[in-house]
Amino acid sequence: MAENKCPVCETRSKHREGEEYKKLMNRLSRIEGQIRGVKKMVEEDRYCIDIINQVSAISSALNAFNKVLLAEHIQSCVVQDVEAGGSEKIDELCDTLQKLMK
Amino acid sequence: MAENKCPVCETRSKHREGEEYKKLMNRLSRIEGQIRGVKKMVEEDRYCIDIINQVSAISSALNAFNKVLLAEHIQSCVVQDVEAGGSEKIDELCDTLQKLMK
Amino acid sequence: MAENKCPVCETRSKHREGEEYKKLMNRLSRIEGQIRGVKKMVEEDRYCIDIINQVSAISSALNAFNKVLLAEHIQSCVVQDVEAGGSEKIDELCDTLQKLMK
Amino acid sequence: MAENKCPVCETRSKHREGEEYKKLMNRLSRIEGQIRGVKKMVEEDRYCIDIINQVSAISSALNAFNKVLLAEHIQSCVVQDVEAGGSEKIDELCDTLQKLMK
Repeated sequence: MAENKCPVCETRSKHREGEEYKKLMNRLSRIEGQIRGVKKMVEEDRYCIDIINQVSAISSALNAFNKVLLAEHIQSCVVQDVEAGGSEKIDELCDTLQKLMK
Repeated sequence: MAENKCPVCETRSKHREGEEYKKLMNRLSRIEGQIRGVKKMVEEDRYCIDIINQVSAISSALNAFNKVLLAEHIQSCVVQDVEAGGSEKIDELCDTLQKLMK
Repeated sequence: MAENKCPVCETRSKHREGEEYKKLMNRLSRIEGQIRGVKKMVEEDRYCIDIINQVSAISSALNAFNKVLLAEHIQSCVVQDVEAGGSEKIDELCDTLQKLMK
Repeated sequence: MAENKCPVCETRSKHREGEEYKKLMNRLSRIEGQIRGVKKMVEEDRYCIDIINQVSAISSALNAFNKVLLAEHIQSCVVQDVEAGGSEKIDELCDTLQKLMK
């Protein structure tokens, strides 16, 4: 699919529209801030269990990010590929789920 | 236990020695860099599955960080508390594991 | 879709062919045997960690079963629904993944 | 520790008292019944997503079983070993957590 190729580097690519793009970037900035927060906790000799709980929360935030991205991928890229008669995106999705469902 | 209280704020605290401290901070800096890498991927319209795989890898790195911290916590804080006749750290550990073992 | 309705109870249904059916049932019988094995371990006063490791292995086997079933579901039910112009199975898949990706 | 050796086979062992034993066995019997329930679902051509959800529920039940067993192990075997001056059970616990925290 042409839409999945970047015009410059010719690798796989997907353009995300305004709202979707902004929400994804906001999530990532928040997660980046949380990581910096954990570094500060280590610097300040904070208690192990408190750090572990905070790192768990970040892990959940990353997982929530991946769920959003995967749902959007399925509802756009995968559906378009199947509608165009393709099976490549379906196979790729199944491969990815094998890795994500640990 | 005195060592688990911060002298300033009187909250729970743990001092980590040179090597241990440096390794934890290095892991966190690497993870922070990986998050910035994902932001760049979104900015560059990179393909969904490639981003999802990278976010999964960061999640594994956070989990590895938590495993290290938890093992160190058990081998120092928990053992010291039991040896001093306490049971509080054991109970707290069990509570934490209930949350971590999703 | 007619194929997804059971002719008798009119509820959702899917017929699985010979090989696929046999493999799924074999996996489940093996897992059932493993559960009975754990009951025997408890009866025989076996050591906690040995039981925990065995239960973890069963959990992995169940997860592997679910991965197979999900891949087959995507490659048959979901693809057929999209090809027929539907979006219901795609939405249901996304909902299910939200729950599976804990 | 003598209590952790089986008098017959000289392998690792742990005796569980009445209530604890009964609760563990009840959980396992219920899980065994749930597995048989899934076999019946496959026999009856039940819909993929319904089976997947049920298998997920069984996986959660196994995980809950392991949490109970691990908490009891920590509060008995591990504490006794540390109180007796040992470090073996602590090391084994850390190894086990590395595997459980996937």
